[in-house]
Amino acid sequence: MARFRKIDLDTARVRRLLEPGPIVLVSSHWKGERNIMTMGWHTVMEFTPSLVGCIISSGNHSFGLIRRSKECVINVPTTKLTDTVVGIGNTTGGEVDKFAKFGLTAIEATEVKAPMIGECHANLECRLHDGRLIGKYNFFVWEVVKAHVAPRPKYPETLHYTGDGVFMVAGKIIDRHKGFRPGML
Amino acid sequence: MARFRKIDLDTARVRRLLEPGPIVLVSSHWKGERNIMTMGWHTVMEFTPSLVGCIISSGNHSFGLIRRSKECVINVPTTKLTDTVVGIGNTTGGEVDKFAKFGLTAIEATEVKAPMIGECHANLECRLHDGRLIGKYNFFVWEVVKAHVAPRPKYPETLHYTGDGVFMVAGKIIDRHKGFRPGML
Repeated sequence: MARFRKIDLDTARVRRLLEPGPIVLVSSHWKGERNIMTMGWHTVMEFTPSLVGCIISSGNHSFGLIRRSKECVINVPTTKLTDTVVGIGNTTGGEVDKFAKFGLTAIEATEVKAPMIGECHANLECRLHDGRLIGKYNFFVWEVVKAHVAPRPKYPETLHYTGDGVFMVAGKIIDRHKGFRPGML
Repeated sequence: MARFRKIDLDTARVRRLLEPGPIVLVSSHWKGERNIMTMGWHTVMEFTPSLVGCIISSGNHSFGLIRRSKECVINVPTTKLTDTVVGIGNTTGGEVDKFAKFGLTAIEATEVKAPMIGECHANLECRLHDGRLIGKYNFFVWEVVKAHVAPRPKYPETLHYTGDGVFMVAGKIIDRHKGFRPGML
């Protein structure tokens, strides 16, 4: 699988990648163990600092690694990785190393110890910003401390999970930039 | 514009509508005043009770109506309402009644006083479940107490906002249901 060459993206602009709601791959690391999980329950929360909230179910093997390390990388796959996304969602990291099993490249991150997935379109390095809703809802508030993105395509074809094994594909663009008042964008 | 005939949807299944990450229209009501705003920062949080978290910026006219009433309706528009979504995102409810301005039908909800938008594909009646992150992040945790959805199409073409006036369109489906282990769906 192809890896993407990436450039830095202003962390205040990760909305472009996450607000459309793609399924993402969350990579984690704790004391020599690493893992990847699929995740569809996330939302942008603020531009600056760049905050993202998400649910990581305590039933996931990744939960312990992420809660202890207080770090993760949110990786955005495109439709080219559909089989990989399905495979990762179908596997538990307690049994296998998912980088090896799915032929994914672990790239060293700059700000966190969790590895980035080279084959994903974008990698967002995250550090825990607020953990007070973890106990009640498994809800983590992350600060994106460093963002890497493939420069092209600007709007890649992404997977949007509906549950029940069915994904919607987003890729076609409607540009209404000129129709907006500047403060309303 | 066409209104949709709707049937009840089990509130534990609203994931199908929201997890793909569409832009939604949030309608509200407080003491005789009503409003509609666009909203793209939301996430599913739990199946049962059916919880949805979202950011409603305090800069929006709707914020006061929603915070005081502790209720709203999350309406899911399709691409047929693109012009309406752009128009609503470009207008403030302090100046106009958006139902009248955009020719939308206010349908009485069952469980909340906020009106439902007849022209949207789905309407989710919401009651505030947890307000403790409103002060710090404008983050509302809603319980979906009643869900209405058009029976067809099951996967309508929806708008996914990237910021900067640009929407991605999701509609094409990839069905991998048979590739999943039942507990992993």
